[in-house]
Amino acid sequence: MTISLSAAKSHRQPWLGLIEMYRQYLPVSDRTPVVTLHEGNTPLIPVPYISQLIGKQVRVFVKYDGLNPTGSFKDRGMTMAISKAKEAGAKAVICASTGNTSAAAAAYARRGGMKAFVLIPDGYVALGKLAQALLYGAEVLAIQGNFDRALEIVREMSEKYPVTLVNSVNPYRLEGQKTGAFEVVDILGDAPDWLCIPVGNAGNITAYWMGFCEYHQAGLCDRLPRMMGFQAAGAAPLVTGHAVANPETIATAIRIGNPASWDKAVAAKSASAGEFNSVTDDEILDAYRLLASEEGIFCEPASAASVAGMLKVKDQIPSGATVVCVLTGNGLKDPDTAIKHSNSLFKQGIAPEIQAVADAMGM
Amino acid sequence: MTISLSAAKSHRQPWLGLIEMYRQYLPVSDRTPVVTLHEGNTPLIPVPYISQLIGKQVRVFVKYDGLNPTGSFKDRGMTMAISKAKEAGAKAVICASTGNTSAAAAAYARRGGMKAFVLIPDGYVALGKLAQALLYGAEVLAIQGNFDRALEIVREMSEKYPVTLVNSVNPYRLEGQKTGAFEVVDILGDAPDWLCIPVGNAGNITAYWMGFCEYHQAGLCDRLPRMMGFQAAGAAPLVTGHAVANPETIATAIRIGNPASWDKAVAAKSASAGEFNSVTDDEILDAYRLLASEEGIFCEPASAASVAGMLKVKDQIPSGATVVCVLTGNGLKDPDTAIKHSNSLFKQGIAPEIQAVADAMGM
Repeated sequence: MTISLSAAKSHRQPWLGLIEMYRQYLPVSDRTPVVTLHEGNTPLIPVPYISQLIGKQVRVFVKYDGLNPTGSFKDRGMTMAISKAKEAGAKAVICASTGNTSAAAAAYARRGGMKAFVLIPDGYVALGKLAQALLYGAEVLAIQGNFDRALEIVREMSEKYPVTLVNSVNPYRLEGQKTGAFEVVDILGDAPDWLCIPVGNAGNITAYWMGFCEYHQAGLCDRLPRMMGFQAAGAAPLVTGHAVANPETIATAIRIGNPASWDKAVAAKSASAGEFNSVTDDEILDAYRLLASEEGIFCEPASAASVAGMLKVKDQIPSGATVVCVLTGNGLKDPDTAIKHSNSLFKQGIAPEIQAVADAMGM
Repeated sequence: MTISLSAAKSHRQPWLGLIEMYRQYLPVSDRTPVVTLHEGNTPLIPVPYISQLIGKQVRVFVKYDGLNPTGSFKDRGMTMAISKAKEAGAKAVICASTGNTSAAAAAYARRGGMKAFVLIPDGYVALGKLAQALLYGAEVLAIQGNFDRALEIVREMSEKYPVTLVNSVNPYRLEGQKTGAFEVVDILGDAPDWLCIPVGNAGNITAYWMGFCEYHQAGLCDRLPRMMGFQAAGAAPLVTGHAVANPETIATAIRIGNPASWDKAVAAKSASAGEFNSVTDDEILDAYRLLASEEGIFCEPASAASVAGMLKVKDQIPSGATVVCVLTGNGLKDPDTAIKHSNSLFKQGIAPEIQAVADAMGM
């Protein structure tokens, strides 16, 4: 069943997911069964308050990828990975993940009629993070071992059994993720001057750079952005130049000590005259609160690293520049952090009378 | 700061929020300061598994409004209510809400540079539901009284003090919400045969009907849908014809005993030859799991009432009909329900060896 494209009276072209919309730039053919939740097409939202903090007529936008179907940018890669797995005849997929990847893998695999297996370390207590994978119908297996061991096992499983690996080593993931850059250019009419992005496993910065370069080669943008990657101070191997044995940060989605796409990210940074910088957890939380309370945008803590980093190096931003900060995940993924780190007033025990309420409101 | 519309090389028109896109159908003027998070433009996703359950070449789509910026359809009404409040010079807004309305009110008010006050009953323990409002920077006030008293107080506050009421009695809310119907027609090329929608306070069914009627009058659709409203069995005043003193259902977003838009919803039902029907909590949970585990779509329990209801009365659906079910909120709003009611396998204590994992996977 497909949506009719002959909607003659409609004034807008329907968005049918990123594979259909960017088919010519992706490794798909007419034989590829497209498994889609109409991911992508996420808003590029101006952030005027933050722009004013920078001044110099700088225009800042956020690419709010938390509005993808499972709540993160992982959907961009997963529609590709799962469609290609289905094309190859896969009946099951597997990944090791405790977060956004497991949710996306489960949703797309089940929609494609495949089984989804998620391996996690035993004793992993934050069941809330698995709520999505479980409801999407994944089978979740907890092994007596750490996360690295879980990764080794899923790799080996995919070699020995008929189950497709959809962790970030799957090459189709980056192909899908590069469409984020396409969408930015499609809205702005050209690439921004700066692209600020959180860096954990370093796949997304790699994919965005691929996207900008491909669009540039196709003549769809005149310029290329400086790729500005930001890591959490406790998990900043690309900034320091060496792997981190025990990465620590409140930004769990980028708490990675040895990024899979290390070399590619360094290449993107160098080719674009970009930079890697680190931001502290306090700076991340400040940006997280600022985005919500001044701009109305609720993202994951890891996502706020892009805005925190941009503000940290704002003196380097040229006058009149256009800057895009990528917000990779939805704040609803992590309500506990929101409650714990909100600075808002919460007054209790107010008498149920107009005057008492007016007093509490300062009126 | 606005996005340039002259993106000559872009192959798509940028989406700038529902007020800009549907300006001619909304009570705004050039003097209205548009407060937007680029809400709307949510995907209309085909659900092939559910369509097959019905058979008869019926095509079912879900309108996934949980992908709005704050995670629910409330953003559609709030961009209008807050923009009009700002136009009128308001410096603060107020609402009584423990859920989606408070999140939307807080986000849009703060983005518009206004204060946001949220009144709730004291002793309301589920702080998680307030995570968004708090992080968005609302001041949350808990009164010693129940929800009805909170509503009375916010109404009176808005009459006596310079603070604008943005609860559902605000008339601009429905104006914004009607754009959901516009978007459905814009994608399908005409109205569907059936529009299935959860009914709580009955504002959304009223707004969708307004939208279809206005588009019909403008010649943008040839037909009008049957408006099929579904209530939870424990909170079904429109089905039984009398208010419910103590509404009870797992679908908290539609746990309302005396809907504000009662008369308008009845008028919409009658004019469209529609129906009101009720669904049990078990039926709601079945649809909630089905949407996630077969279609990859994670919604709030209340949202699943539309699909549960459609399946309950599926024998009435004409052959070849097009049916749209509205999913009003994002499942991430309520992770606890997902964990509690998932039927997925969660196996622990597996030895960290290939064979043990393969055994656990049934391979």
